[in-house]
Amino acid sequence: MLGIEHPILLAPMDLVSGGKLAGAVTSAGGLGLIGGGYGDLDWITKEFEEAGNQAVGVGFITWSMLKQPGLLDKTLELGPKVLMLSFGDGTEAVQKARAAGVKTLWQIQRLEQAEMAIKAGVDIVVVQGQEGGGHGMDRGLTALLPAVRDLAGPDQVIVAAGGIADGRGLAAALMLGADGVMMGTRFWASNEAVGPDAAKRQLVDSKGDDTIRSKVFDVVRGLDWPWHFSGRVVANKFARKWHNNIEALQENADAQREVYEASDPQDYATRVLIAGEALDLIDAIESAEQIVDKTVSQAAALLKNGANFLAR
Amino acid sequence: MLGIEHPILLAPMDLVSGGKLAGAVTSAGGLGLIGGGYGDLDWITKEFEEAGNQAVGVGFITWSMLKQPGLLDKTLELGPKVLMLSFGDGTEAVQKARAAGVKTLWQIQRLEQAEMAIKAGVDIVVVQGQEGGGHGMDRGLTALLPAVRDLAGPDQVIVAAGGIADGRGLAAALMLGADGVMMGTRFWASNEAVGPDAAKRQLVDSKGDDTIRSKVFDVVRGLDWPWHFSGRVVANKFARKWHNNIEALQENADAQREVYEASDPQDYATRVLIAGEALDLIDAIESAEQIVDKTVSQAAALLKNGANFLAR
Repeated sequence: MLGIEHPILLAPMDLVSGGKLAGAVTSAGGLGLIGGGYGDLDWITKEFEEAGNQAVGVGFITWSMLKQPGLLDKTLELGPKVLMLSFGDGTEAVQKARAAGVKTLWQIQRLEQAEMAIKAGVDIVVVQGQEGGGHGMDRGLTALLPAVRDLAGPDQVIVAAGGIADGRGLAAALMLGADGVMMGTRFWASNEAVGPDAAKRQLVDSKGDDTIRSKVFDVVRGLDWPWHFSGRVVANKFARKWHNNIEALQENADAQREVYEASDPQDYATRVLIAGEALDLIDAIESAEQIVDKTVSQAAALLKNGANFLAR
Repeated sequence: MLGIEHPILLAPMDLVSGGKLAGAVTSAGGLGLIGGGYGDLDWITKEFEEAGNQAVGVGFITWSMLKQPGLLDKTLELGPKVLMLSFGDGTEAVQKARAAGVKTLWQIQRLEQAEMAIKAGVDIVVVQGQEGGGHGMDRGLTALLPAVRDLAGPDQVIVAAGGIADGRGLAAALMLGADGVMMGTRFWASNEAVGPDAAKRQLVDSKGDDTIRSKVFDVVRGLDWPWHFSGRVVANKFARKWHNNIEALQENADAQREVYEASDPQDYATRVLIAGEALDLIDAIESAEQIVDKTVSQAAALLKNGANFLAR
C-alpha cells in the first residue's frame, strides 16, 4: 500500500519527529512521519522543507487539530505521503485526505475505537498498546492487536505501536496480526531526532520500570487533553510528587506551572521526558538508518528460523 | 527442562485451576498447575487427588503462603512437578523446593523483580504482562519480556504470561524471547475449570475493553494485598462504582462487604469475575485439550511461514 521496502514507520512524535528524522527513516526504507502534534503550521511547514526530497507523512493529535479551522487543508497542500490521526474522531479528516489523494492512518487504543476507524474507511489502523511513550490508554498490545485483526478481517492494513524497539518486537507484531510497526521512543534516541543530547542520553540511561502513565504533565502544562488519555513519561521527581495526588496539583496548577516553567528546560528532574517501556531495549543513540537496518535484520533472522521454534 | 511436549502452562488460578483442569492440560501435552492461591491445604490436597496420575504443579501467592508456617513443606510432600511463586520474595521457597527436588517458577511483573528471581536461582522466570487477569502490575508484556531475556541471558528458561490466549500469542512470545507461555483466562473458559457455567459464559460474552486493573475487590473482600498489586477483572457495576473512589470504599468497607457478601455468588454485576484482556480472543468454552491443540497448531503454522512475513 505504501510502496516502502521495510514495514517500519516513525511515530509522529510532537516536535521530536522533525523533517530530518522523518526523511532519514524514509531514506532507510521505512516511512517517516513528521510530528504535527497539537498543530503548529509554521513548524510543520519548516519540517517538510527539512525532509527535502524524501516522501514523508504527518501526524496530528486529532482533537487539537480540529480546533484549528484550515490547519488540515493547509497541511494537505504540503503534499504529505500519509496523514495520521490519533486521539479523537478522525472521520472528517479521513474524508478530506482521501479527496486529496492522501492515504490515512488512525491510531486506536481500544477495540471500540478500531470499529470507529474502520467505519470511517481509514487506510491503515494503528493499534497502540499502553506500553508506548506519550499519550495513550490502558490496553496492552499483546491482546489488543489480534483482537483488532479479528475485527477488521484479513484485508485491513494494521500497524502495531507501543513498546516496540527492535526486531523481536517487529517479529512478534507480525505474529500477532500486524503488517508492520510504528516506533517512537527508539527513534527519539536517534541522531536525527529534534531535541537536546541531554534528553537522548537520559533515555538511554532510563529503564522501562521508571516510566509511568500519568496526567501530571498535562495538568501542569495546562494542556486540555480528554481525561481518559494519559501520557507515558519517565517518572522524574516532579511526576512522583504529584502522580498520586492529581487533585492537589489541579488545585495548585497556576503556582506549579510557574515552578515548572521557571525550571531549566533540560532539568529532567522537573521537565517532562516522554518515553515508552521499550527504554530497556535502547542502549545507544544511533542513526535512523542503523535502527531500521538492525530492526529488520533481527526480525528477518528470527522469522526465518521460525519453523525451529516449536521443534526445540 | 520440564519434559513436556508443548510449551504451554496452565496459570495456577486460585480455586479455578483445580486438579481436573491441571491434569487435562498435562494430559494434552502441556503442564497444569493447581491454583494454590492464598493457601488452603485441604483444597490443594483434594485437587492433587483429582489430578490422578497426571503430573501437575502448584502455584502460590507468595506473601500469603509465607504467613502459614508448614504449608510449603506439606505441599512439597504432595509431590508437585513444579512449584510456582508469585507476588513476593520467593527466595527461601526456591531453596526448599530445590532441596525437595522440585523445579521452581517465579512470576515477575517488573524488570527489577526479575533480577531478584534470577539471583534466587529460580529454574523458570515467568514474565507477566499487565494484560493478564487477576493480580499483577503495570508493565506490558511486549517490552518487558525481551528486557528480561536480555537481563537473564540465553540460558535462562523464561515463560510469558498475560494476554495470551491463542497461537498468535504463543508465536509472538517466542519471538520476544520466551521459551513458552502460561495461559489463565483462556483455560478459565474451559470445560474442566472449577466454577459455574454462568461465569464461563460471562467470560465468552465479555470484551477486553471491559476489563480494568483495580483494587476494588481486594478492599471489599478484606484481602491484605500489598498496595502495588492490583487485580484485572471484568469492570462490573460494583467495580465501576468504586474504582475511582477507593478511599470512600475503604471508609465504607464493612458496610460494602455486607452488600457484597449478601449478593448471589453468581451475580456478576456485584461479584468479582477475574479475567484478562485476552477475552476478545475467546469465543467458546472448550476443553483443555482443544485449547492446547489449537494454540500449538496455530503457532506452528505461523512460525513455519515466518520466512515469508518480511518478504510479503
